[in-house]
Amino acid sequence: MSVGTDAGLLAPTWAGTPAAAEVTDEAWLQAMLDAEVALARAQYAVGLTPAAAVRAIASVARADRLDLVALAHAARAAANPVVALVTAFTEVVAARDAAAAEYVHRGSTSQDILDSAAMLVARRVLGLIAADLERTGAALAALADTHRHTVLAGRTLAQHAVPTTFGLKAAGWLQLVGDALVRVRAVASALPAQLGGAAGTLAAYREYALLDRGDRGDRGDRGDRGEDGEGWDGGRNPVGGEGGVELLRPFAEALGLAEPVLPWHTVRTPVAEVGAVLQLVTGALGKFALDVQTLSRTEIGEVSEPAADGRGASSAMPQKRNPALATLIVSAARQVPAHALVLAQCLLAEDERPAGAWHAEWQPLREALRLAGGASHTAVELAEGLVVHPERMLANLELTGGALVTERLTVVLAPALGKVRAKKLLTAASAEAADTGRPLAEVLSQHPELPALFNPARLSELLDPAHYTGAADALVDRALRRYAELDEKGGSR
Amino acid sequence: MSVGTDAGLLAPTWAGTPAAAEVTDEAWLQAMLDAEVALARAQYAVGLTPAAAVRAIASVARADRLDLVALAHAARAAANPVVALVTAFTEVVAARDAAAAEYVHRGSTSQDILDSAAMLVARRVLGLIAADLERTGAALAALADTHRHTVLAGRTLAQHAVPTTFGLKAAGWLQLVGDALVRVRAVASALPAQLGGAAGTLAAYREYALLDRGDRGDRGDRGDRGEDGEGWDGGRNPVGGEGGVELLRPFAEALGLAEPVLPWHTVRTPVAEVGAVLQLVTGALGKFALDVQTLSRTEIGEVSEPAADGRGASSAMPQKRNPALATLIVSAARQVPAHALVLAQCLLAEDERPAGAWHAEWQPLREALRLAGGASHTAVELAEGLVVHPERMLANLELTGGALVTERLTVVLAPALGKVRAKKLLTAASAEAADTGRPLAEVLSQHPELPALFNPARLSELLDPAHYTGAADALVDRALRRYAELDEKGGSR
Amino acid sequence: MSVGTDAGLLAPTWAGTPAAAEVTDEAWLQAMLDAEVALARAQYAVGLTPAAAVRAIASVARADRLDLVALAHAARAAANPVVALVTAFTEVVAARDAAAAEYVHRGSTSQDILDSAAMLVARRVLGLIAADLERTGAALAALADTHRHTVLAGRTLAQHAVPTTFGLKAAGWLQLVGDALVRVRAVASALPAQLGGAAGTLAAYREYALLDRGDRGDRGDRGDRGEDGEGWDGGRNPVGGEGGVELLRPFAEALGLAEPVLPWHTVRTPVAEVGAVLQLVTGALGKFALDVQTLSRTEIGEVSEPAADGRGASSAMPQKRNPALATLIVSAARQVPAHALVLAQCLLAEDERPAGAWHAEWQPLREALRLAGGASHTAVELAEGLVVHPERMLANLELTGGALVTERLTVVLAPALGKVRAKKLLTAASAEAADTGRPLAEVLSQHPELPALFNPARLSELLDPAHYTGAADALVDRALRRYAELDEKGGSR
Amino acid sequence: MSVGTDAGLLAPTWAGTPAAAEVTDEAWLQAMLDAEVALARAQYAVGLTPAAAVRAIASVARADRLDLVALAHAARAAANPVVALVTAFTEVVAARDAAAAEYVHRGSTSQDILDSAAMLVARRVLGLIAADLERTGAALAALADTHRHTVLAGRTLAQHAVPTTFGLKAAGWLQLVGDALVRVRAVASALPAQLGGAAGTLAAYREYALLDRGDRGDRGDRGDRGEDGEGWDGGRNPVGGEGGVELLRPFAEALGLAEPVLPWHTVRTPVAEVGAVLQLVTGALGKFALDVQTLSRTEIGEVSEPAADGRGASSAMPQKRNPALATLIVSAARQVPAHALVLAQCLLAEDERPAGAWHAEWQPLREALRLAGGASHTAVELAEGLVVHPERMLANLELTGGALVTERLTVVLAPALGKVRAKKLLTAASAEAADTGRPLAEVLSQHPELPALFNPARLSELLDPAHYTGAADALVDRALRRYAELDEKGGSR
Repeated sequence: MSVGTDAGLLAPTWAGTPAAAEVTDEAWLQAMLDAEVALARAQYAVGLTPAAAVRAIASVARADRLDLVALAHAARAAANPVVALVTAFTEVVAARDAAAAEYVHRGSTSQDILDSAAMLVARRVLGLIAADLERTGAALAALADTHRHTVLAGRTLAQHAVPTTFGLKAAGWLQLVGDALVRVRAVASALPAQLGGAAGTLAAYREYALLDRGDRGDRGDRGDRGEDGEGWDGGRNPVGGEGGVELLRPFAEALGLAEPVLPWHTVRTPVAEVGAVLQLVTGALGKFALDVQTLSRTEIGEVSEPAADGRGASSAMPQKRNPALATLIVSAARQVPAHALVLAQCLLAEDERPAGAWHAEWQPLREALRLAGGASHTAVELAEGLVVHPERMLANLELTGGALVTERLTVVLAPALGKVRAKKLLTAASAEAADTGRPLAEVLSQHPELPALFNPARLSELLDPAHYTGAADALVDRALRRYAELDEKGGSR
Repeated sequence: MSVGTDAGLLAPTWAGTPAAAEVTDEAWLQAMLDAEVALARAQYAVGLTPAAAVRAIASVARADRLDLVALAHAARAAANPVVALVTAFTEVVAARDAAAAEYVHRGSTSQDILDSAAMLVARRVLGLIAADLERTGAALAALADTHRHTVLAGRTLAQHAVPTTFGLKAAGWLQLVGDALVRVRAVASALPAQLGGAAGTLAAYREYALLDRGDRGDRGDRGDRGEDGEGWDGGRNPVGGEGGVELLRPFAEALGLAEPVLPWHTVRTPVAEVGAVLQLVTGALGKFALDVQTLSRTEIGEVSEPAADGRGASSAMPQKRNPALATLIVSAARQVPAHALVLAQCLLAEDERPAGAWHAEWQPLREALRLAGGASHTAVELAEGLVVHPERMLANLELTGGALVTERLTVVLAPALGKVRAKKLLTAASAEAADTGRPLAEVLSQHPELPALFNPARLSELLDPAHYTGAADALVDRALRRYAELDEKGGSR
Repeated sequence: MSVGTDAGLLAPTWAGTPAAAEVTDEAWLQAMLDAEVALARAQYAVGLTPAAAVRAIASVARADRLDLVALAHAARAAANPVVALVTAFTEVVAARDAAAAEYVHRGSTSQDILDSAAMLVARRVLGLIAADLERTGAALAALADTHRHTVLAGRTLAQHAVPTTFGLKAAGWLQLVGDALVRVRAVASALPAQLGGAAGTLAAYREYALLDRGDRGDRGDRGDRGEDGEGWDGGRNPVGGEGGVELLRPFAEALGLAEPVLPWHTVRTPVAEVGAVLQLVTGALGKFALDVQTLSRTEIGEVSEPAADGRGASSAMPQKRNPALATLIVSAARQVPAHALVLAQCLLAEDERPAGAWHAEWQPLREALRLAGGASHTAVELAEGLVVHPERMLANLELTGGALVTERLTVVLAPALGKVRAKKLLTAASAEAADTGRPLAEVLSQHPELPALFNPARLSELLDPAHYTGAADALVDRALRRYAELDEKGGSR
Repeated sequence: MSVGTDAGLLAPTWAGTPAAAEVTDEAWLQAMLDAEVALARAQYAVGLTPAAAVRAIASVARADRLDLVALAHAARAAANPVVALVTAFTEVVAARDAAAAEYVHRGSTSQDILDSAAMLVARRVLGLIAADLERTGAALAALADTHRHTVLAGRTLAQHAVPTTFGLKAAGWLQLVGDALVRVRAVASALPAQLGGAAGTLAAYREYALLDRGDRGDRGDRGDRGEDGEGWDGGRNPVGGEGGVELLRPFAEALGLAEPVLPWHTVRTPVAEVGAVLQLVTGALGKFALDVQTLSRTEIGEVSEPAADGRGASSAMPQKRNPALATLIVSAARQVPAHALVLAQCLLAEDERPAGAWHAEWQPLREALRLAGGASHTAVELAEGLVVHPERMLANLELTGGALVTERLTVVLAPALGKVRAKKLLTAASAEAADTGRPLAEVLSQHPELPALFNPARLSELLDPAHYTGAADALVDRALRRYAELDEKGGSR
């Protein structure tokens, strides 16, 4: 039992979801191997590493060829897993092609490999998240459009306030999803590869380049470059005066990541930005989920989660239909900001590489990615399947006997009474209605001053919540339009 | 003593700085009044509120006309300061012009005023921060350029690693400042005004508009609109079919803020984004400051803070020159992420307006703004005045007797010995040098295998740290170029 | 406007409360002066400083004799306010008694003064909090006792679950308040004075002691010690072999703080513990407040906050009675853990005194103290005035037509049907009742199997929520007993 | 790859450590089964469940009999893993003994099982931590004692301040370890079992008890109780008037946990306290580790980590001996407070059981436990093997040419010159020495005023750092005494 299974027993938000599969120890190990392969390819691309060596390295760069558990435990010695990984992987390559082993991790350093792997993993999960946000957004847009005239009680500070529409409520959720999507796309597309060497000067990469260039004439094996048809376009840019810098682009391209301006061993903006965007994702979805929980309270009952076998079941109570999807999302939203905080604080990385600040990033980054990925996955199901109960919304609107529109009455009475006096009068009338349980209309109609101002029909119209939803309809349009625009721009579908 | 002075006695990072002045209780109160004035102007602009009323409102909208302490204490009753503010301000306006008082806070709600004020305050401070980041960036760019050939020990995990240049180190700081600046500008320019009314439907704004439109014919005072030359161009867009939505643009323009797509009472992206960008600012500057602290350690002594009277003094020790500026910045960088976390968590705002999540934003927002503003202000002085000691850098490079370039030797020996064996040999030689205190060159020159590979002159060249700075120079150029580009794009100077 | 008033405009939780008055800049400045006076007294107590000097120092140690704003601004130079304070205070003392000025801050260091002041301030606020928790606890105990038979719906995951009693609910709040109280008392009583000198060795204190001892014979002024009747018993313990350590006890006693084992300049447990206990306080009260908000939702209406003029008012809606007290508490509970986190992270304080970690404590400590103090103050009012509506609880129990007790039916049917089959049957029946809107009793009575098991009277009894409150009554007793015990032990009344 | 191995590839702090083994998914699953067994035993103990059923349940309650991955994935439906666990486990029991299956999870609810399991897991890890803290404490106490006269530079704000001793430094670390140990013991011993049933009233437990009592005469199988020699003493306390409450003690005893006063489904002090104590542990050890990192900087070199094969190796640089153990500890210390924050915020758990706040606790609790457990495990090795270099400490003391004792000179000159003038004079002399590179002694000896005050021998003595360590020795004694006392009280050895 000393090594466990990472099944997510305590993390139902992400257990079994696609995002979880992208951040397992195995997936990270593979991503590190991917970075080693990309390095060999980049060095080939600038005329350094022979194609045969690249092929040999690439052919065995599979996580299942290494002893994951042994690597993890060995990582304690160096405080990171790459040192042991390089040793083990070099042996694997050597077993295949002894000469190729010389080209493994050539000129590199642990952080180049681990950071590049982290960005790969992050990009994969952010891609999943973007796709899930798009589906969630589409579903919410449909809800906003469909329910643009579905009136319900607007609630502020836990009390009925004035009427609103369910469409506008969904438009607010959509707006959040759109905000998150914009940032997810921006951050994902800017994730840089990491390449700096021991202290960020690219010195050993350059040294090997100078070395290889010096004896390039001796290497017959360079002749085969490009012939392997692996789809990467190398070998055309032999090392020049810059010495090392020319590796940045082909390395980034081999990984499908952005080319960094500088090595960013202690310029941790990329990691901090991933944290910030993930907390925006779970915050946005969390607001949606929190509203679903509130609206599905037994006493409110205005929405239900989509039904599914076993969904929302209790181990004790047969009648229970818990808002399980929303709960999964909310639980993620409560955790991710703490991980983002750790990542933000790791911006304070001393020297050329820090003694702890870098190491503290890995677990929070992984956990934040899968929490946000799991929450996004869950949100799709919640948004697409949400069941709306307009009849309960209508019933709840009646609960306060008209108090919901006293704001409107204040406005209407203002010209006659003045704004301040009108509000005082309505405050007193509302209190009387609440205390006596009499409908507000009745209280008002018996008021010494008001009957002169209103005839009963006008009062009845004024007290109708459906006539006091303001610009909700136009606002829904604005939200749909904005979302459509950003969806066009960056849609991944 | 029951009400204190907000002098920053416990916050020297921001005490007395320009940012601090922008976030005092007085400044927030003024910003709320500014929002009330902007509302009146916007309502005038769409043909509702008479110009005379706007003038009356604007003329008395000064924080010093209100009892700040009384308002703050009264805020406990409603859990926000705006309810009492509206009452008090209405009285102030009424004292000037009784008719105008009817137009104060017309159709509005507390959150419209407070959120708009918060955005105003945030924009002012972000403007200060952007200007300070620009000055800091300029100074760091100069340092990077000037010291592109100043060699010093690269340090990783607190140990000498391989050589680097001080120019590249400064380029890393510059990169962070650039990253922060990009986001500060983006966030600052997108800060939206808030306008939604009680539950975000704009209903009361619309109701007043309908009302006014209904009896517009009766109001001779509309004739004076535009004549007051206040520089705002109103009255040309009488309320139309949208009903309420037409207020969004003029309101935002009157405040110099962005027009919101929707009311964002519970779409809290703007506030969360301010938190995220502020922690990026202090994280970026914090890395710079942390390095300054390390490099100015007594044993290292490679940089000094700019001297100033009393700067870095101790109450006990006459010899002390503490890195006080860096300490101020680091202390801010340790606090801001916690405030950003609270703001991120407040994305979980239930209903149309939440019972606590909104209220929890105000203090963290204020404190994060002034901490980041104070840190930026401090960073200008630190970057512009930083004293560099290349001679100490040189002396420290000698400390390890050549161990600093063993990576290079590994590369050079790899063709002859193989990468793995070369590293093992150097590991053993480094350990022997460290244990015996003998210079690495001596240990190597007595090694049975190596003399055959190197002549003494070659070994001496290989052991020279100044010859192993990799692509540092080219990287500095890249960083300067990138910073120059973003500076051109968004420069506020 | 460059220096503001600390009125709490953005912090209604603490604006105008007793805790706020204890943590103003003025209060901290006074506490620092109190520490300076205590130091002089302690040095007198061990036979060092003359009584006349102590009297002179004590007589002018008033915050209003110093220029607070100037001190705050000057603090930027040294990164802490004490360096400037010592200079200014020395001048104030010198103006009164030139000889006494030599005894100001004698042998001391900034951190001794500021840390001791912080503990003084913390102790004062924790004392207020303890008293408020006691009052809150008493009110909650009364609620638990009074409502031990008041049945309401237990709610889990936002859904009706099984019945409980309001008494048990209040007992849970009481339990939390008791937990917080135990820790507040423990932490408050252990807060240590700080005394260590420049690097925690007490060296300068000792040096002055040796110096004074050397020329003690020359000082006729020692003769007056004890005659001043100031109530502090000094002078009997002339410095001995320990040299410096003997100051710890009288210094702590003069401040009413605990004697430290060691100087704790970088042993920051006391500060971290204050943070941890404050987040426990606001977390405990926050749970209470959150429940009040939920129970006072318009649709639930089972409790109301105590009414007061203007309480819970809205700037827009006349009918509003927002749960303002609960909102103030919840908003504090959302902020304090972030401050506690900063304090916990400041445990990582390098060297003998750190360059940033110490400085980052002050504002979070202050803000956490006043937020928790304000929340406690507010909780007293909420707990003492909470209005309970048993009739609404009863009405809500009926909402689900009996589903609330399906767990019980499962138990009762288990012997006949087996536990698993019984649960399945009830799950199906509950779903049918919910979908058709028919009462559960009716659905069950028409079930082919069940009528044989129950007669109508038995079924009716089984479906009565009031008959299924389990051990709620006994649990209330347990909670009351436990609280009474801890109240006896540590009661401050 | 969709389910990973929880090997700790990204968490070398805990990978392969004993604490990690206690918190795997498998370990949690086993702890949940332990809780189910304990429930059956407790129900037997009060005369309810037959001994044969208990035996059957206990005999198959092994995690490896269940499909962990399937359970984890199924947990998404109910938002917690217990619902599926109960179904699966009931089948396992039924396969062994159909009658016994009726007694699985009888009257229980998910949270009773999961919370009790969490406390079991926490207690196990806290036990490991306590033992590791004791070993660390013993090693630090030995260091403090051994090095009580080893003088080194005290450092404040990254600068040499005044001399101190390495013994006192170690005493500070010891003090922190002691503080953490006291709290770990207190919290560990108070961890309560959880038993409340669906909404914390114990209603279903009670209902089953009433049911069983009603037909107890029919159950011949009760006769076998006690005969099975399983070592638990049951059956003597048939359910009485309290109904349910009598289960609390035997359930807690069966788990070796504390008896709760109340069900604590939403009284989350126990979990928040575990978080708070874990951050105290890593904060305490983090300070120690941070100092080790600083002292082992290349330029300082005053301590080294214990050597071990591969320890501190780099993938690039052969000479590297990174402070890997300290880095592992620091990286944990940077993460745990964020987890503790989430746990503290989960105190805000609404209703009888919350929709998200509970679910957000599990992963942070697990991760904080293993991070703190791993850090403690690592600290033992670091403390026991730390290599101290007194000769480097001595050499570093010389670096500032006497500036380290200017505080002392101020004291000595104060009687002749006055404290203020003395400090000014030394400030000027120190600056002159620093600027010119001349030794302070030389500068002072050429000062117009000073030679008259000192003869050269006296000056030389005054400038000796070893003569200015204050009360360091006595303070070490105090720290050792305090630690010995608490070690006696609670020592687990």
